[in-house]
Amino acid sequence: MPQNIYDNPEFFAGYSQFLRSREGLAGAPEWPTLRSMLPPMTGLRVLDLGCGFGAFARWASEMGAAHVLGVDLSEKMLAQARSQTPDPNIAYRLGDIERLDLPDAAFDLVYSSLALHYIKNFGRMCATIRRLLTPGGHFVFSVEHPIYTAPRNPGWQTDPTDATIWPLNDYLREGPRVTEWITPGVVKQHRTIATYVDSLLDQGFRLTRLEEWGPSPEQIAEHPDWANEVHRPPFLLIGARL
Amino acid sequence: MPQNIYDNPEFFAGYSQFLRSREGLAGAPEWPTLRSMLPPMTGLRVLDLGCGFGAFARWASEMGAAHVLGVDLSEKMLAQARSQTPDPNIAYRLGDIERLDLPDAAFDLVYSSLALHYIKNFGRMCATIRRLLTPGGHFVFSVEHPIYTAPRNPGWQTDPTDATIWPLNDYLREGPRVTEWITPGVVKQHRTIATYVDSLLDQGFRLTRLEEWGPSPEQIAEHPDWANEVHRPPFLLIGARL
Repeated sequence: MPQNIYDNPEFFAGYSQFLRSREGLAGAPEWPTLRSMLPPMTGLRVLDLGCGFGAFARWASEMGAAHVLGVDLSEKMLAQARSQTPDPNIAYRLGDIERLDLPDAAFDLVYSSLALHYIKNFGRMCATIRRLLTPGGHFVFSVEHPIYTAPRNPGWQTDPTDATIWPLNDYLREGPRVTEWITPGVVKQHRTIATYVDSLLDQGFRLTRLEEWGPSPEQIAEHPDWANEVHRPPFLLIGARL
Repeated sequence: MPQNIYDNPEFFAGYSQFLRSREGLAGAPEWPTLRSMLPPMTGLRVLDLGCGFGAFARWASEMGAAHVLGVDLSEKMLAQARSQTPDPNIAYRLGDIERLDLPDAAFDLVYSSLALHYIKNFGRMCATIRRLLTPGGHFVFSVEHPIYTAPRNPGWQTDPTDATIWPLNDYLREGPRVTEWITPGVVKQHRTIATYVDSLLDQGFRLTRLEEWGPSPEQIAEHPDWANEVHRPPFLLIGARL
């Protein structure tokens, strides 16, 4: 079982205060971009890896998905998701997304938001997802951007010319990164954009879109503290198809 | 006509001293990776955008290409290329790679090494290359990596913890970057990985490979001064197909 930070009471309390936790998809600034990469939901069988509080599952069901299965390893998040979802089209399952015991070709869309940078072996994940998808099936996901996960000391610095800089290093050294995020000791798995893309291509996926998300000028006007995000994208969004 | 730094005597003299200028493909450490992304040359009609001294054109012809056309805006480089290439399968043309006056569907492979980060409009370039290629044709190229071209002050720094860092900023701000490279005032066009990839997809290309090149441990052992390159990839290599 991988690290389950989300059921740590301190982490859960902190995470629950985030805009995206309180407001769901509307509180996730990258959601409009990610949504634009999704196929029409009507009639789809959808698998959501790392479904958290179930915001996407509810949206997909409202948009006409035939069935949504959300998988997450956090009991607390699933309990809250279940309490908010009296929808017979949605099911939640407690489990490790790296060990999915699900039938072949059972889904038309696999979706994942900001979960896959926790898993160790993305190539194996792609092989599993290929198995779970129907021919022509979609895989759309977001992760923390590799530029964001790479550094030994991730945090803004000011250089000798007074410019704001993101202190990038170890970009090509893939592997775990232990950071403080809400609580100390959070382990993320850094991998390059090339590894994300080529792992998909190696499993027969066709890339349909790649986005390095940063806030729009309108979003920065509304949230001035996001202005630095233009220096390095916080999120990588990828759309792929079998 | 874009900036032609290569015919500046001082730049040309400096550039001519580079390992890759003196030794051709053998002096380009990313060449083995780029070569692995190419289709077999036998019988191909090849267009090389920014052919420089003609090292790739000679290699492609030796490997069985039916015809190679190299285009470059540097008279000095083409003069040297012509003097080294008494090969009837190779032709060189002085010109701007952003204004190619060539017939439709005349090539099976468009290749470009470290030239396309000088052009302003990569989307228009992709549209032109689609027009020049036959169905199923290949487009394989390398550029300076966007992490490399982005910063206002590109150069290694040491952070307060004594870590070597690449001072990344302005990654999401696309456009010209004026740097000192051999001579002052060299203008490169920064664009994101997403723009490179999505411009290809928008023109109907299928991505076949994406590499963020850095030196191998063997290459670092031979060239210890390359060790920092692991902190940020210097080159982005992309393979695509119609």
